[in-house]
Amino acid sequence: MSLTMYSASVPAFVRLLASLRGILEKAAAHAEARKLDPAALTGFRLYPDMFPLTRQVQIATDMVKGAAARLAGVDVPRYEDTETTFAELIARIDRTLAFLREFRPEQIDGSEDRPIQLKSPRGEMNFSGRDYLQFFVLPNAYFHATTAYNILRHNGVELGKQDFLGRP
Amino acid sequence: MSLTMYSASVPAFVRLLASLRGILEKAAAHAEARKLDPAALTGFRLYPDMFPLTRQVQIATDMVKGAAARLAGVDVPRYEDTETTFAELIARIDRTLAFLREFRPEQIDGSEDRPIQLKSPRGEMNFSGRDYLQFFVLPNAYFHATTAYNILRHNGVELGKQDFLGRP
Repeated sequence: MSLTMYSASVPAFVRLLASLRGILEKAAAHAEARKLDPAALTGFRLYPDMFPLTRQVQIATDMVKGAAARLAGVDVPRYEDTETTFAELIARIDRTLAFLREFRPEQIDGSEDRPIQLKSPRGEMNFSGRDYLQFFVLPNAYFHATTAYNILRHNGVELGKQDFLGRP
Repeated sequence: MSLTMYSASVPAFVRLLASLRGILEKAAAHAEARKLDPAALTGFRLYPDMFPLTRQVQIATDMVKGAAARLAGVDVPRYEDTETTFAELIARIDRTLAFLREFRPEQIDGSEDRPIQLKSPRGEMNFSGRDYLQFFVLPNAYFHATTAYNILRHNGVELGKQDFLGRP
């Protein structure tokens, strides 16, 4: 099976979000079993000027929904970013998984040279579709999913690498 | 430019390692400026049963040198895993960058269906070249590079996301 823009994006995004969902479920169960305030985990930051767990999950989902939409040339769904609980974060992941699963390979394949422009408070970023996927979306998505994992591991939630890598 | 097994691997690995190198340089300078024992950073773990910074860097480099070699069907270079200082970790990255830069696209392109077998204490893992890259190498490489970044951010080293994403 050839590597294509679809095969290098959507299946990897689905695997990443399904793993992150499992990690959040384990964290919620950990808090419940130990009678911890779940907000002690969902609001935790590894350093005062880093984002808390909630925002890590929001950005991971934003990265992948934005990528699938932009590579296919459809509108990026806007979310409200109001999640504060594990249940709400898991619902956001489920909504994103449902969105990703709607894409067909032919919508995304061949998008290597599609011009992608991102606007941020720091200015415009311009990429080819290929560079956007490889040098922006994948590193960012894995960065925020890993940071979510690290926040939870740092707080004693029992997770292992396989929870992060996921299963086919 | 089409997405190929080479373009989806070696350039992403080079970017990742070049960024990680810059992050370690900033951390070494931070320790020096504040007269900290650098071992307080290189030996730091986010949780007692997680790997320290040194091992995170070792595994990140192992992932990408192993991937380039296996996808091309050449021997994986063996490293001694004796690094304890920032200078030694940076030298390991430089050695890996030099190794990666020797590969030509035609050595790796077309390796989507190449059978890849990994042996670990927990058993054998079998992948196609494509699945190995997408579902094992990239998530693992970004995981360990992000965890190195998080260890340093957690300890007050001044880094930002752009240090992680790197530059072309």
